[in-house]
Amino acid sequence: MSGKTSNEMWGGRFASGPSAIMEAINASIGFDQRLYREDIAGSIAHSRMLADRGIISQADAAEIGRGLEAIRAEIEAGTFAFSREREDIHMNVEARLAELIGPAAGRLHTARSRNDQVAVDFRLYVKAACRDLDAALKALIEALLARAEEHAATVMPGFTHLQAAQPVTFGHHCLAYVEMAARDRGRAQDAMRRMDESPLGAAALAGTGFPIDRHATAEALGFREPTRNSLDSVSDRDYALEFLAAASITVTHLSRLAEEIVIWSTPQFDFVRLSDAFSTGSSIMPQKKNPDAAELVRAKTGRINGSLVALLTIMKGLPLSYSKDMQEDKEQVFDAVDSLALALAAMTGMISDLQVNAAKMRAAAGAGFSTATDLADWLVRELGLPFREAHHVTGRAVAMAEARKVPLEDLPLADLQTLDNRIGEEIYSVLSVDASVASRTSFGGTAPENVRAQVRFWRERLAAEG
Amino acid sequence: MSGKTSNEMWGGRFASGPSAIMEAINASIGFDQRLYREDIAGSIAHSRMLADRGIISQADAAEIGRGLEAIRAEIEAGTFAFSREREDIHMNVEARLAELIGPAAGRLHTARSRNDQVAVDFRLYVKAACRDLDAALKALIEALLARAEEHAATVMPGFTHLQAAQPVTFGHHCLAYVEMAARDRGRAQDAMRRMDESPLGAAALAGTGFPIDRHATAEALGFREPTRNSLDSVSDRDYALEFLAAASITVTHLSRLAEEIVIWSTPQFDFVRLSDAFSTGSSIMPQKKNPDAAELVRAKTGRINGSLVALLTIMKGLPLSYSKDMQEDKEQVFDAVDSLALALAAMTGMISDLQVNAAKMRAAAGAGFSTATDLADWLVRELGLPFREAHHVTGRAVAMAEARKVPLEDLPLADLQTLDNRIGEEIYSVLSVDASVASRTSFGGTAPENVRAQVRFWRERLAAEG
Amino acid sequence: MSGKTSNEMWGGRFASGPSAIMEAINASIGFDQRLYREDIAGSIAHSRMLADRGIISQADAAEIGRGLEAIRAEIEAGTFAFSREREDIHMNVEARLAELIGPAAGRLHTARSRNDQVAVDFRLYVKAACRDLDAALKALIEALLARAEEHAATVMPGFTHLQAAQPVTFGHHCLAYVEMAARDRGRAQDAMRRMDESPLGAAALAGTGFPIDRHATAEALGFREPTRNSLDSVSDRDYALEFLAAASITVTHLSRLAEEIVIWSTPQFDFVRLSDAFSTGSSIMPQKKNPDAAELVRAKTGRINGSLVALLTIMKGLPLSYSKDMQEDKEQVFDAVDSLALALAAMTGMISDLQVNAAKMRAAAGAGFSTATDLADWLVRELGLPFREAHHVTGRAVAMAEARKVPLEDLPLADLQTLDNRIGEEIYSVLSVDASVASRTSFGGTAPENVRAQVRFWRERLAAEG
Amino acid sequence: MSGKTSNEMWGGRFASGPSAIMEAINASIGFDQRLYREDIAGSIAHSRMLADRGIISQADAAEIGRGLEAIRAEIEAGTFAFSREREDIHMNVEARLAELIGPAAGRLHTARSRNDQVAVDFRLYVKAACRDLDAALKALIEALLARAEEHAATVMPGFTHLQAAQPVTFGHHCLAYVEMAARDRGRAQDAMRRMDESPLGAAALAGTGFPIDRHATAEALGFREPTRNSLDSVSDRDYALEFLAAASITVTHLSRLAEEIVIWSTPQFDFVRLSDAFSTGSSIMPQKKNPDAAELVRAKTGRINGSLVALLTIMKGLPLSYSKDMQEDKEQVFDAVDSLALALAAMTGMISDLQVNAAKMRAAAGAGFSTATDLADWLVRELGLPFREAHHVTGRAVAMAEARKVPLEDLPLADLQTLDNRIGEEIYSVLSVDASVASRTSFGGTAPENVRAQVRFWRERLAAEG
Repeated sequence: MSGKTSNEMWGGRFASGPSAIMEAINASIGFDQRLYREDIAGSIAHSRMLADRGIISQADAAEIGRGLEAIRAEIEAGTFAFSREREDIHMNVEARLAELIGPAAGRLHTARSRNDQVAVDFRLYVKAACRDLDAALKALIEALLARAEEHAATVMPGFTHLQAAQPVTFGHHCLAYVEMAARDRGRAQDAMRRMDESPLGAAALAGTGFPIDRHATAEALGFREPTRNSLDSVSDRDYALEFLAAASITVTHLSRLAEEIVIWSTPQFDFVRLSDAFSTGSSIMPQKKNPDAAELVRAKTGRINGSLVALLTIMKGLPLSYSKDMQEDKEQVFDAVDSLALALAAMTGMISDLQVNAAKMRAAAGAGFSTATDLADWLVRELGLPFREAHHVTGRAVAMAEARKVPLEDLPLADLQTLDNRIGEEIYSVLSVDASVASRTSFGGTAPENVRAQVRFWRERLAAEG
Repeated sequence: MSGKTSNEMWGGRFASGPSAIMEAINASIGFDQRLYREDIAGSIAHSRMLADRGIISQADAAEIGRGLEAIRAEIEAGTFAFSREREDIHMNVEARLAELIGPAAGRLHTARSRNDQVAVDFRLYVKAACRDLDAALKALIEALLARAEEHAATVMPGFTHLQAAQPVTFGHHCLAYVEMAARDRGRAQDAMRRMDESPLGAAALAGTGFPIDRHATAEALGFREPTRNSLDSVSDRDYALEFLAAASITVTHLSRLAEEIVIWSTPQFDFVRLSDAFSTGSSIMPQKKNPDAAELVRAKTGRINGSLVALLTIMKGLPLSYSKDMQEDKEQVFDAVDSLALALAAMTGMISDLQVNAAKMRAAAGAGFSTATDLADWLVRELGLPFREAHHVTGRAVAMAEARKVPLEDLPLADLQTLDNRIGEEIYSVLSVDASVASRTSFGGTAPENVRAQVRFWRERLAAEG
Repeated sequence: MSGKTSNEMWGGRFASGPSAIMEAINASIGFDQRLYREDIAGSIAHSRMLADRGIISQADAAEIGRGLEAIRAEIEAGTFAFSREREDIHMNVEARLAELIGPAAGRLHTARSRNDQVAVDFRLYVKAACRDLDAALKALIEALLARAEEHAATVMPGFTHLQAAQPVTFGHHCLAYVEMAARDRGRAQDAMRRMDESPLGAAALAGTGFPIDRHATAEALGFREPTRNSLDSVSDRDYALEFLAAASITVTHLSRLAEEIVIWSTPQFDFVRLSDAFSTGSSIMPQKKNPDAAELVRAKTGRINGSLVALLTIMKGLPLSYSKDMQEDKEQVFDAVDSLALALAAMTGMISDLQVNAAKMRAAAGAGFSTATDLADWLVRELGLPFREAHHVTGRAVAMAEARKVPLEDLPLADLQTLDNRIGEEIYSVLSVDASVASRTSFGGTAPENVRAQVRFWRERLAAEG
Repeated sequence: MSGKTSNEMWGGRFASGPSAIMEAINASIGFDQRLYREDIAGSIAHSRMLADRGIISQADAAEIGRGLEAIRAEIEAGTFAFSREREDIHMNVEARLAELIGPAAGRLHTARSRNDQVAVDFRLYVKAACRDLDAALKALIEALLARAEEHAATVMPGFTHLQAAQPVTFGHHCLAYVEMAARDRGRAQDAMRRMDESPLGAAALAGTGFPIDRHATAEALGFREPTRNSLDSVSDRDYALEFLAAASITVTHLSRLAEEIVIWSTPQFDFVRLSDAFSTGSSIMPQKKNPDAAELVRAKTGRINGSLVALLTIMKGLPLSYSKDMQEDKEQVFDAVDSLALALAAMTGMISDLQVNAAKMRAAAGAGFSTATDLADWLVRELGLPFREAHHVTGRAVAMAEARKVPLEDLPLADLQTLDNRIGEEIYSVLSVDASVASRTSFGGTAPENVRAQVRFWRERLAAEG
C-alpha cells in the first residue's frame, strides 16, 4: 500500500549525510522568521543607542536603520529570500544587511550577541501575545455580558454532576464565564508585567565593557526597565512558560463552555442552537447540527497543555546559561498563540450567535422538584426549624408530590399542612422557579437583579480599565 | 515469587462488593482531613455571621463555636476518630458536633452547602500555601545573597552549551537564581491576590435567600472580598491550577541549580563540595560523595509537573457547576506543596552549606582562551575596528596562542603587533580573567562591583517588601 | 485565619536543620515498604543461589531464609518496627535480619548491591501489576459481554458529535469497549513479557567476579531470563514507563465510558440508571442521582496521565547508571496501580448494575430521520443511482417529511414516488430503526446477529486464552 | 515597538467574520494533505472491492483507479491545487476526481464514509511510522554495536550519581543503549501488530448493508484483518496514542545519551569529541565545540512528551463514536514522527562520528579508589570474610592509600598485611582497572569478553530477525 519506505520517511531524507541531518535539526529559520519585526526593531534600537553613546557613528547607525527598514519591507512584500544555511532570522537579516549597506553592517553586532538578541526578540513577541490575549478575552467578556444582560431572567437548571440541582438564570451562567475570563486577563496582565524587562545588552552572557545604555534600549522597545542579571537574561524562559501556563488555564475554561455547548446542542437537551457558521450539517439529515467549532475548541486544550508540558520538560535540568535546547521554545509558543487565538475567536463568535431556547431551559429547570431547597429554606426562615429538620420535612413533601405526580407548587395546601400546620398560602410564593431565582439575592446569587447589577459592574470596570 | 494475587491486589480488595468499591473511590477523609483547621475556621465564621444577622441565635452560635473548638483540640490531640463512612472532613466534623452539642449543630448548615464549604476550605489552604511558598523563596534568596556577596569576585566560567564561554563570577551566577526566585515570589503573590475572594455563601450553586452577609465572613476569614458569582464560586479551581503552575516553574528553576550542583560535584569539575548533610557516601570509597539531595530536588520537577498535568486534565471539559471529578484536586495540591517545601528547604540548605572551590573555578575560567571576546571588544573600542573584523583578528591571535600552547595573556607583544601594529602594552590589561570580569560593568553585567550593588539592591528590596 | 504559619508548613518542619531535611527528602521507607514481599523473595532466591554455587554455606543460606521468613511474618502481623533512619525497605529488612540471625546476615549482600536489589524488587512488583491489570480487564470484558448479549437487539442512537447519526444497538456499543479493553490487555501482556528479565546479579552496575548463576535466580523468581547488560539493569525504568503508558490509555477508555454514563444519566437523556451503589442522592430531591462513581473514574484519567508525565520527566536526561532521581519512580506507579484498580472495579460494577431504559434509547434512535442513509443506500443498491445523487434525492425526501412533521417511514408512497417513480412498497422495509440495524450485516456492523456472533467470538477467545 | 496589533494577531485575522473563523478552525487540508498516498491507496482498494462484489461496475472502478493515479501524480509533481474550502484531503481528492472522470466519481463513496476513510488513512500512516521507527532504531543499534566492538576493552568509569563508582568499558556502556533501543523496537513492533486491522467498511459508524468484503480491502491494503466493531473503528485512536507513548520512551533514552554526550564533551570530562558535523564552534574560540545536535536531541523529549499529553488530553472523556476533537490527532503524530526521525538520525550520526578519548576515560576510571569493591570482593572470595566485614577492612585500606596519596594498587604489601596477614602478592591482580573489568564475567557483566559475546549475540539476532 502506502508507497512510503523507510528511506523516504526517516533516514532517506538525510541521504546526503551528517551535514543534511545537522542542517535539518539545527536551523530555526523555518519558524523563527515569524520574529522578523521584533528582530529588526531590536536591531534599530540597539544601533541608535550605540550611536548615541558614541560607540558607532551616527552615520553608520542611520545607514543600518535604513537597511533594516528596507529588509522589513522586503519581508513584508514577500520578496526576501530566506536561507536555511543562514540558520535563523538573525543571520538572515544580518547577512542581507551586509549585502545592502556593506561594511557598516559589521558594526551592528557590537556589544551584542545572538543570545541577548533572540531573548529580546522572543520577549517582545510574548509580550505582544499577552496583550493580544488580554484583548481577545475582553472581546469574549463583552459577548458574554451582552448575553447575560439579555438573559438576566431566563431560567435554566443549575447543574451539579450534570443533574439539575437548583434553578439559576442563563445570564448568571454567562457571568460565571465572565469571572473566569476576567481572571484569565489578570494572569495575562501579570505575566506581561513580570516579563516587561529588556535583556538586550546582556550580550553573550556576562554583560559588556562597552559603555552601552540598556535603559535607553529598554525604553525604545517599550520595556519598563532592563533585566538585572546578564546570565539570567539569556537563560530565562519564564515568560514563555508563564504565558503557556496562563493559556492552559484559559483554554481549560473554554473547554468547559465548549462541553456545555456540545451537550446543550443535543436534541435531548436542546437548550441552544449554534448558528450555521459554527456548525456543520449533513446533506441528508437536515436536523443534524454538528457542533464542530465547539469540539475543536475543546480539543485545543490538549494542544496547549501539550505545549506547556513540552517547554517545562525542555527547561528541566538545563544548566545556565544558554543551551541549544532552548531553541525549541518558539514553536510551542507560536502554536499555542495560534490555537488560543482561534479558540477565543470561535468561542466569542459562538456565544454571540447562539440561539437560546428559553422554553426548554425553563421546563428543565422546573423538573425534578428543583425548588425543594427553597421550601426547606422557607421552613427554616419562617418557621424557625433547624436546617436538618427542615430538610427532613421537605423530603416528605417531595415524596407526596412524587406520589401525586405533580410538581411541588401544585401540592394542595392541606397536604402541606399535614407536615406542619403553620404552613400557609404564602408558601406558594417560593415554590416556582421564578420565585426561586428571584429569592437568591445574596451577594453573587442568581437573582435577576443581581445579574443585572453584575453586568453593570463589569461594564463599568471594562470602561475604567480598558 | 511475589505472593500477590489478583485478588489481593485488585478485585480482592473489594470482595464485599459494590459498596466497598464505592466507599473506596468516594471517600475523601483519607486526605481531606488535612483541611480540618480551615473547615473549622470556616464554620465558626459562618455561624457567627448567621447569629449577627439574626438567622440563628447568639446562644446557638456560641455553642457551635465551643463545639468546633473542642473538635479542633481533639484532632490536634490525636483523639478524634475519623470515620470513612462519614466520607469527608465536613461530615466528620459536623457529625461529631452533633454528638457534642446536640440539636444546635443542625443550625450550622443554614444558608450553606458542602459545595461552598469545601471551596472556602481549599482556598484558605491554597492561599496559605502561596504565602508559605513566598516565605520559603525569600529564605532561598537570602541564602543565595549571602553566597553572592561572599563570592562577588570569585571567578568561574560562564557557560553556554555547558562549554566555558566567558568568565563570570560565582556571585553573579548566584544572583541569576535570585532573579528567578524573585519572579517565583511574584507569581505566588499574584496567585494569592487573585484567589483572595471568599466563596462562602455561594451555597449549593445559586446563592441563598437568607439575609447573609458574605462580606462579613470574607473579612473574618481574611479574604479581601467575597466572590461575585455563585456558580463560579463552586466550580472554580483556578487557584489550585495557578498554584501548581507557579510551583512547576519554581521547581524547574530548582532543577537547573540541582543539575549544576550534580555536575559541579563531579571530580572532573570539582567546583563545589556538598556538606555531608546533603550527600551520601560509600563506606569503602570515602572520596565518593553522592549528591542525593540535589538529584531528589531535580526529580521533584517530574512530580510537580505531573500534578499540574493531572489537575489540568481533570478540569478539562467539566460542565458547570460542581462535578465530583473536582474532588481529585486536593491530593495533587497537597503532594505538590509537600514536594516543593522539601525541595526548597533542601536547596536552601545545600546553598548555605556548599563549599566553593575557588581555585578550580578560576582555573576553568581561564582555560580555552575565554577572554578572546575581550580582545575583540578592545580592538573595536580602542582601534575602531568593525565588530566582525575585530573577530577575525582575534581568531588569528587565538591561533597563535594555540600554536604556542600558551594562554592569550602570555602571547608576546611582538606577536600581537603582527596582527595590528597599534596594539600596545595596555592590551594585557584585558586578557586576564579578572580584568575580563571587572570590565563587564554594563547594567546587569558580571563585574564584582555590579554584583555587590545587586546584593545591596535585593537586600533593600527584601527589607522594604518583607 | 488558618492557623498555619510558614514555620509549621514549610521551614518549620525542618527546624532541627539539614539532617531533618535530608532524612525527609531521602528516606523511601514511607512508600517502599510496599515492596517487602518482593524484597524478601529476591533475597531468598539470591542466598539460595549463593549457597548452590558454593559462595556461602548452605547453613548460612538456610539461616538467612528462616530469618527472612520470620521478617515477612512480622511485617504481615503488623509487628515489624519500620525505621526511617534505616531509609528504605532493603536496609530495614537487612538490619532486622542481623538482629535475628547475627553474623550470617552479613553474607547475604555478597555479589549484590542495593542497585540491582531495588531493580529486581520493583520489576517483580510491576510485573504483578501488569498481570493483575490484565485480570481486571478480563473481568470488565466479561461484564460488557453479558450486557452486550442481553442487549444485542436493543436499538439506540449511534452518535457522532454527540448527535444521533444512525441507529445501532446497545450491545454493539458495549462491544466497542470490549475491543478497547482487549487492546488494553494486549498492552499489559506485551509490557509484562518485555520486562520479564531479572536484573538481579547486575550488582552495583558492572556485574561481579563471583561465580553467580543469574539464570538460576531469574528462574527462582519467575523471570524468563536474566537481563543482558549490567549498566542497563540498574538504570532502566522502561517497565514502569510502559506500565504507566498502558495505564493511561486504559483509563482514557474508561473516561469515555464514564462520560457517556454521566450524559446518559441526565433526565434529558435518561438512557441508563445507575444502581444506588454507584451514585449518591439528595435527601430532599429523591429523583436526583449523582453519578459520582462515573465522575471519579473520569477524573482518574488526570491522575494517571500525571503519573506518566511525572516519570517521563524524571527520567529525561539522566546519565547512566543509577541516579537518585529514580527513587521517585515508585510512588507514581503505586498511585497509578491503586487508581486504576479502583477505576476498573468501579466501572465493572457500574456496567453490571446499570439499568437500561430501552424505550428511551429506541425513541431517541428513531428521531431526526436517522434512517436517511438507509434510504440513500437503498436508492444506490436497488435503483443504481450514484451515491452522490442518491444523497440528493434522500435530502428531498427528508425535506418532505420535515414539512409534514412525520418520520420518514410515515411518508406516503406517492410522495416518495415523486422523487423517483421506481420506488415501491418495499422501501418501507428499510426505513424503520429495526430494519436499519438489521441490515448492517457487514463484518463489524451493528446487526443483532453480528453482535451475538461477536459475543461468541470473545467468549471463545477468553476461554482459549484465559 | 513590535508593530503587531491585536487586530493583526488575533481578531484581525478573522475580520471577515464567523465564516473566516470557522474555515480557519475547521479545515485540515493544511496538514492532512500529508496523507494523500494513504487516501488514494484506500480509495483504490475500496473501489476495486466494490467492483469485485458487483456493487459498482468494473468499468467505473477502472475509471476511478485511473483518475486517482492521475491525482497522485499531480500531487507528487506539485501541480495539484489544494483548496481550503474543500476542507480536507478526502474532499480535495474526491472533488478533483469528479473533475477528471465525471459522474463515475460519485460511485466511489458507496458503502463508505469520511469516518472510516480517515481512520484507514491514518492507520496506514501510523503503521508505516512504526515500521520506519523500527528501521531507524535498527540503524542506531548497528552504530552502537560498531562502537561497542571497537571499544570492548576501553576502560571508563561506571557512574552512579554521576560519580565514578566502578570501572566499566565504553563498549559495555554502548551496549546498555543497545538494550534500550531493542526494547524500543519491541514496542514499535507490538504497536504495529496491534493496529494491523483495517477499519475500512465501518462506514459512518454502524457498518453497511452493502455486501462489501472487508477482508479483501484489508488484504489489499496490507492489513492482517478487518476490525471487529464498527463503532470502535471510527472512534479508536489507540494506535496514535500507543505510537506516541513508544516514541516518548524512545526519545527519553536518546535524551540520556545526549546528556552524556553534552557532559562528556566538556573540557572537564573530555571523554569524547563530536565531529564538526554535529557541533558548532565559535569563530574566535576554536577550542569551543558546542554540542548543539545533542542538546537538540535532548530537547525533542519535551516536544514528543508534549504531543503524547496533547492527544491523551484530547481523547479524555470523548463519547463514542467520532467527535471532531479527534481531528487534532494528526498534527501531534506528524510532529512526533518528524522530531523522532531527526533525533534518531542525529544520534546515529553522532555515535558513528564520535571521537573517543580513551586515555581520559582510563584515567578517570582509575581515580577515586574505584577498585575498592574489587578488594572487598577478593577478601570475601579468597579469605572467606563476611561481606560486611570485608567492606570494613577495605575502608581501612582506602584510608591508608588516601593518607599516602597513592592509588590502592601502589600500597605496599606490608601495609595491606597489617589489615589481614593472609593477604599476599596476588592481591595486586585485582586492584587495577583492567583486572577489575576483566573479572566482571557474570552474565551481563562488563568484562571485555562479555562485551564481545554480546556484540555477537546482537549481530546474530539482527541477522535472524531483520
